Amino acid sequence: MGLSPKKMSMIESSLANSIPGQSVDCVIIRYKDRALQVLLLKLKNTELWTLPGGFIFKNEDIDDAAKRVVEERVGIKSIFLNQFYTFGKYNRRNIEQLMQLFDKMEMKKPFIMHWFTQRFITTAYLALVNTSKAILPQTEFLSSKCEWVPISDLPEFAFDHHKIIRKAHEHLRIQINYLPIGLNLLDETFTMKELKNLYEAILGVNLDRGNFQRKILKLNILIRLDKKFTGGAHKAPYLYRFDKKRYAELNRKGIGFIR
Amino acid sequence: MGLSPKKMSMIESSLANSIPGQSVDCVIIRYKDRALQVLLLKLKNTELWTLPGGFIFKNEDIDDAAKRVVEERVGIKSIFLNQFYTFGKYNRRNIEQLMQLFDKMEMKKPFIMHWFTQRFITTAYLALVNTSKAILPQTEFLSSKCEWVPISDLPEFAFDHHKIIRKAHEHLRIQINYLPIGLNLLDETFTMKELKNLYEAILGVNLDRGNFQRKILKLNILIRLDKKFTGGAHKAPYLYRFDKKRYAELNRKGIGFIR
Repeated sequence: MGLSPKKMSMIESSLANSIPGQSVDCVIIRYKDRALQVLLLKLKNTELWTLPGGFIFKNEDIDDAAKRVVEERVGIKSIFLNQFYTFGKYNRRNIEQLMQLFDKMEMKKPFIMHWFTQRFITTAYLALVNTSKAILPQTEFLSSKCEWVPISDLPEFAFDHHKIIRKAHEHLRIQINYLPIGLNLLDETFTMKELKNLYEAILGVNLDRGNFQRKILKLNILIRLDKKFTGGAHKAPYLYRFDKKRYAELNRKGIGFIR
Repeated sequence: MGLSPKKMSMIESSLANSIPGQSVDCVIIRYKDRALQVLLLKLKNTELWTLPGGFIFKNEDIDDAAKRVVEERVGIKSIFLNQFYTFGKYNRRNIEQLMQLFDKMEMKKPFIMHWFTQRFITTAYLALVNTSKAILPQTEFLSSKCEWVPISDLPEFAFDHHKIIRKAHEHLRIQINYLPIGLNLLDETFTMKELKNLYEAILGVNLDRGNFQRKILKLNILIRLDKKFTGGAHKAPYLYRFDKKRYAELNRKGIGFIR
């Protein structure tokens, strides 16, 4: 059940090199099967889930700590990562629950117990990833599973992580005109329908097909490619890809094509 | 030059009750003389300015710490306060500069020196205030002045506070449809021109008078009152006030009347 002494001392020295009381948590989102999915970890010996998170090394920028967390879980380096909120309620973590977990894990080293039971203020990041190039999600020493879960069907969480996910989703909706959403979540090429489905998944509403197509084509950010090969006939949809330069330009200004 | 022993020991005990390594900084904005103005403190014995900021007590929510900072500086309790970003670069504060300042202030108590020279991650808040009910800005023990300064004409800052203000302004522009801007920055009653001027000051562009008036009246958030008494004749403009219930409703959805 417990960890090896060597593993324990590695954890201990990593914590000793971190800033006490501060953490990062990452809401890593992908778009698959017409749904937004978020990466979650299941705490060992419990039915509770958490977001992937970590601590900030004493000589590390906070953004780099968040990058490291994402890379450790899904093995992707260059991804879109956007800080969106810092959660600092005095009682945001249930310390008793945590003590029970450490009991079950036979991890009673005083320094580690003390570390995890202190008050933490956590800065939350939103990562948008396309997992076609990702590795299988990796667990860490506190978790037994690491899985993609539809954002519309979330399990029970430890601490305030449900609030963090809700806030991330709100951030995505509010900032929809300012975030390079399509570019990060879709494959290199996609159909108009796939793009529309993505925006519908984020906004939680149905969009009119004609209106959507008209608005987005007018922006001149899509390059039309050959028709998608479906084996079938004339009804095959066109494939598109983003004109990255133009996309970046509009993104700076706020694309404004949905709202 | 130095502080009294009693004052020093009060500061020391307040710091001992705070979370190390974490702070809040407040970009407190008012709208006056057709300009956005931000509240700044001038560090004693220097030409450098800072934002009003503070530390978080060990048993205090981070939002409450920000509220406390605003109240201490301008004496207003119930104001609009919105967390917008956490600044966590490893080298964001110039420690050498700080040491020189403490030298000049003859404040060499080891605990206080140690406190201020540690690494700080700071969470920044945007406060929108109407100073008609505010007290005169109050300095604290590190500062010689506390003044309102036009955001378009900022002085030299200690640390990364210019970045924090730039980000606050960007937040205001991006979130313009989601923040209750007019309600917090204008007086109870105002003319159409005053409302337009406010939006122009935030967005940094000129808006068409007719378009602006048509869009905002369509939203049904304004209640028209008597004409402003100018002593003059038929050209006196109408006064308006916000329909607070309707305003709150639209604000939740994102007003969307400018963009």
